[in-house]
Amino acid sequence: MTETEGVVDYLVDERRSAEFDVEAMKILWAGGKRQFDVTDRMARLAATDPEFKKDGRIHQGRREFVKNSLRKVAHAWKLTNQLSLTEEEASLLRYFVDEPSSADIHWGMFIPAIKGQGTDEQQQKWLPLAYNMQIMGSYAQTELGHGSNIRGLETTATFDHMTDEFVLHSPTLTSRKWWPGGLARVSTHAIVYARLIVDGQEHGVHGFIVQLRSLDDHQRLPGVFLDDIGMKFGNGGYNAIDNGCLQLDHVRVPRDHMLMRVVQVMREGKVVESGVPRQLIYGTMVFVRQMIVNDASRFLSKAVCIATRYSAVRRQFGSQNGLETQVIDYKTQQSRLFPLLASAYAFRIVGEWVSWLYTDVNERLQAKDFSTLPEVHACTAGLKVVTTSVTADGIEECRKLCGGHGYLVSSGLPELFAVYVPACTYEGDNTVLLLQVARFLMKTVAKLGSGEPFAGTIAYMGRAEHLMQSRCPVRKAEDWLNPDVVIEAFEARSLRMSLACAQNLSRFSDPDEGFLELSTDLVGAALAHCQLIVVSKFIEKLQQDIPGDGVKEQLQALCSIYALSIVNKHLGDFLATYSITPKQGSLAQDALRSLFSKVRPNAVALVDAFNHTDHFLGSTLGRYDGNVYASLYEEALKDPMNQTEVLDGYQEYVRPILKMQVRNSRL
Amino acid sequence: MTETEGVVDYLVDERRSAEFDVEAMKILWAGGKRQFDVTDRMARLAATDPEFKKDGRIHQGRREFVKNSLRKVAHAWKLTNQLSLTEEEASLLRYFVDEPSSADIHWGMFIPAIKGQGTDEQQQKWLPLAYNMQIMGSYAQTELGHGSNIRGLETTATFDHMTDEFVLHSPTLTSRKWWPGGLARVSTHAIVYARLIVDGQEHGVHGFIVQLRSLDDHQRLPGVFLDDIGMKFGNGGYNAIDNGCLQLDHVRVPRDHMLMRVVQVMREGKVVESGVPRQLIYGTMVFVRQMIVNDASRFLSKAVCIATRYSAVRRQFGSQNGLETQVIDYKTQQSRLFPLLASAYAFRIVGEWVSWLYTDVNERLQAKDFSTLPEVHACTAGLKVVTTSVTADGIEECRKLCGGHGYLVSSGLPELFAVYVPACTYEGDNTVLLLQVARFLMKTVAKLGSGEPFAGTIAYMGRAEHLMQSRCPVRKAEDWLNPDVVIEAFEARSLRMSLACAQNLSRFSDPDEGFLELSTDLVGAALAHCQLIVVSKFIEKLQQDIPGDGVKEQLQALCSIYALSIVNKHLGDFLATYSITPKQGSLAQDALRSLFSKVRPNAVALVDAFNHTDHFLGSTLGRYDGNVYASLYEEALKDPMNQTEVLDGYQEYVRPILKMQVRNSRL
Repeated sequence: MTETEGVVDYLVDERRSAEFDVEAMKILWAGGKRQFDVTDRMARLAATDPEFKKDGRIHQGRREFVKNSLRKVAHAWKLTNQLSLTEEEASLLRYFVDEPSSADIHWGMFIPAIKGQGTDEQQQKWLPLAYNMQIMGSYAQTELGHGSNIRGLETTATFDHMTDEFVLHSPTLTSRKWWPGGLARVSTHAIVYARLIVDGQEHGVHGFIVQLRSLDDHQRLPGVFLDDIGMKFGNGGYNAIDNGCLQLDHVRVPRDHMLMRVVQVMREGKVVESGVPRQLIYGTMVFVRQMIVNDASRFLSKAVCIATRYSAVRRQFGSQNGLETQVIDYKTQQSRLFPLLASAYAFRIVGEWVSWLYTDVNERLQAKDFSTLPEVHACTAGLKVVTTSVTADGIEECRKLCGGHGYLVSSGLPELFAVYVPACTYEGDNTVLLLQVARFLMKTVAKLGSGEPFAGTIAYMGRAEHLMQSRCPVRKAEDWLNPDVVIEAFEARSLRMSLACAQNLSRFSDPDEGFLELSTDLVGAALAHCQLIVVSKFIEKLQQDIPGDGVKEQLQALCSIYALSIVNKHLGDFLATYSITPKQGSLAQDALRSLFSKVRPNAVALVDAFNHTDHFLGSTLGRYDGNVYASLYEEALKDPMNQTEVLDGYQEYVRPILKMQVRNSRL
Repeated sequence: MTETEGVVDYLVDERRSAEFDVEAMKILWAGGKRQFDVTDRMARLAATDPEFKKDGRIHQGRREFVKNSLRKVAHAWKLTNQLSLTEEEASLLRYFVDEPSSADIHWGMFIPAIKGQGTDEQQQKWLPLAYNMQIMGSYAQTELGHGSNIRGLETTATFDHMTDEFVLHSPTLTSRKWWPGGLARVSTHAIVYARLIVDGQEHGVHGFIVQLRSLDDHQRLPGVFLDDIGMKFGNGGYNAIDNGCLQLDHVRVPRDHMLMRVVQVMREGKVVESGVPRQLIYGTMVFVRQMIVNDASRFLSKAVCIATRYSAVRRQFGSQNGLETQVIDYKTQQSRLFPLLASAYAFRIVGEWVSWLYTDVNERLQAKDFSTLPEVHACTAGLKVVTTSVTADGIEECRKLCGGHGYLVSSGLPELFAVYVPACTYEGDNTVLLLQVARFLMKTVAKLGSGEPFAGTIAYMGRAEHLMQSRCPVRKAEDWLNPDVVIEAFEARSLRMSLACAQNLSRFSDPDEGFLELSTDLVGAALAHCQLIVVSKFIEKLQQDIPGDGVKEQLQALCSIYALSIVNKHLGDFLATYSITPKQGSLAQDALRSLFSKVRPNAVALVDAFNHTDHFLGSTLGRYDGNVYASLYEEALKDPMNQTEVLDGYQEYVRPILKMQVRNSRL
């Protein structure tokens, strides 16, 4: 340890052992110098403003907790205006406040939905109100009885010719909107998704802007019934949000409150296509998924940062110079932690690529080129699944890697898990999405030999013949460090799994029945394809110039760890498809062990490169200075249990128990 | 659905489709008719007493929450005395109250430690006080800086010749006791583990009974400093317990407060062995692990019960007679849910076997036969790991299988997870334990060919030569239903993995270094061995007579599902060791699919057989009657957020935001 200006750095030796330029890696992680500067500035703004302190929030009751979160929303809004923050800065500030709030859905779903599905006039009317927060909006799609299957929604919007209005109605208990954030008490408006009915005819599900509360006194409007849906996973987390239940009893909205960018209802009740291509809506979907992939890398990076620093501080068993061994030196710890460290970097890099993909798709959509949409849809769906599921499991794994103390809320890990894990379910349940990817793969495989070209993430299918016959050339552990070898093994595995599925499907006379029956195999094939995408995007990145001493070498090691730990974890796939031999699988293990040793001295520096402030991490175990034990004790003392020496309930419950026998003996 | 006396059973069709005698299965699950009766009686006692209602506990602040839990402790204690419950009944009642309490450690650790480590005199003195709850005890082993490695504990107990006392002291911050339940505010006593020091000589770590608080007014005694360690994972759960931090400042206890069953300190300071074999302590360890294995099956059965019933109620996509498809009919759902259902049964059966093993070990210990101890230690350590890790992950998987609603606390699943997951860390971290199993396996393998007999769970090692050459005979999917085939594949995999490890280890000149370097492979081999134990105990059970129509058939299907889903999940192991071929792996998948279809009509009845009351399940989604949606809504209404129509914080924070622009526009 070292002491500078009274601050002890328990991790200084770890930082000294780094073999790369940490500042350069920080810039790479941030996505460039400009992004680093703005991100760093906003992170520090949130970290240093006392209004954003995280103290004590876990000890609050539900209502107090929601109120406290709104206090931060109001303060962030005040700063946004006072400091004239740009949209990017304001959004980063909200992000670094790092507490879910009822306004998240306003910025994250309400505004994007109007932008994506509203006509130009609708955007001109509603967006300024929303951007200025004169109204606060929620996004009401999911119903009590209906989640993934949007076509199953029961809420109705019936056109009334007489008044030129839609009548929105919840006909059943299960049709009530359920889950939308901010819906129960905070939002003034919501986009409500409902089945459009005109003259008794159904015209699919559409979004309608519905005012829920008076802008004068915030009282709910007639026919609008709003309830909070109750407590959610975690001490704090999403309990700061008033996720709501909405029942509509024949609530009327003007005709122009239906979002009509693609489908329009005319005054006389005619339902017409606007001429704007339906596919434009996919742009929003790619945008949301791009956010999810990038979020995954940030969440995972927080967990990995905490677990890595604490593993370097914590000592257990063994003995060198009288000290126990640092936990991070155990191969069992490394083999669980370093693949997650590698995944955080992999997801950051693939996240950057998906952001590029979003721009590319938008340009194509403007030019009415829809040719890449199916592949982009499959690819982004698959990346959503891979990144969210690894991140959710990874946070929990990091918590376990911190031993008992990871179970304390002050470690930051329980809340990180509780806040993150819904990502596996929202915006497409992960299993449902993988089946969509599989469907796309089966369509692609069916075109093999047709001469049709394969582009983008399925380009490798064009080399099917080669990949069916290729043999993995690995003969010694180091051969696994060759990116071409790795890619080809992943391509062979993915292609062969898809082809095996297609072959098995062909045995069914009813293809839909076959798809249902073989769905677990199909999910496996889809996952293999998605993992290949991450590996290949990571490798592509490494073919570019990467500034900074030693930065590229670290990323190469992480890329190999990412890929080889998948080989190890999914060894059954690789062996069953004969993509590699058992001996080669064992050599991959050997290669991994060497890579772990290579990364070990750089581990703390690699998590420093995430540039997380202690405020943002919110963890006693993950502190930058490694002063873990004093911090654990200090946080513990803040618990209300420590405010009194005498226990609440001692007189009523404990004393009578302890004295019962004594009393009996006097009888 | 059907209606009887006003009660609608939404799952009646599911129950009608069962092909076995559910009542007979209930008795098997309970472990016999007598056990069923007493368990059922105590479950109903807890379920029907209004004092044990679970309502509203998640909305309480920390102190109120602890107090509420103590209220239930006092009430359970009152009932225990009023109804003159037996020890078994009282313990079951506490179990079915189903809320962690500060008294758990008193019954679960304090009393067993005195029984296991105290001399006869010490037991005579302390046990009546403890059984009558005239004192309440905690168990203080773990320190802030020291968990798994007991030899690293820093607390000291120094013998003072002059006064015939031990002086207990916490010399550093990291030496403070940290984690013990009930320690901070409730317990009057604790067993404190400390390094025994006599005349400057260290004599290892021993337990000392230390009084913490006055029995008159519950004030802490001089030199005793107690704090609560703060909030833990989950809304409720273990936050009901005052896990504590204990600092001792030269606290003196009489010499006879050291637990001296095995090692004794004499008046003159001589440290002597009592003559009672050290190995007796292993009896307690086996007892605790037997409890953990049986607990795992109960926790997993709760999660599986909730997910199965809700999967039968919930409908998504597809369409039959206008209704969407029941989620439980999807193969993707079955392939995640049914292996967990099978695991719950497998762990119940292996738990029963470990309970028998405990009796057997105790008989041997009494007869000073210590020959089976190493094998029993390895086997119970391994079973602890397999059952706790599958259960922790399985609860979270069940939560995900319930879609979005599983994230609501009212589903019961978030709390079930938060309460269960520490089992992976306490009583031996799972990775540390697997390495102990691996060490035992390496010792066993070293004896191959020595002519020494192999008994118990390693008997198969005696057939090493055969197993190294055996070939799996599976040619069609149904061949996998043959238990002999399954067992041999598991035995071959396990033996070959162990032998491969031994071979790789032999290449290291320093065996300890080799063990560290190859630790991940060793963990893999240990896991394979432990999974074999579960599979073989399940199969052994099925060789017995099992009463009840169709009961055995269901268990056979579940046993095959359990085994084959491991083949599927760990396919890499089976293929890499050439224990099966890729084709046979694929046939195992086919067999699994058929088994899922076979279990499907019985699924709800199979979870009914757990005989869980709605009180014990505490789940809107897992209700016996399947009336899920009304229940979700009813529970939501209890949230404090729904007590007022106007939001706390509206005036202070929301209104100013909404009105800010209006004010600006007036300027």
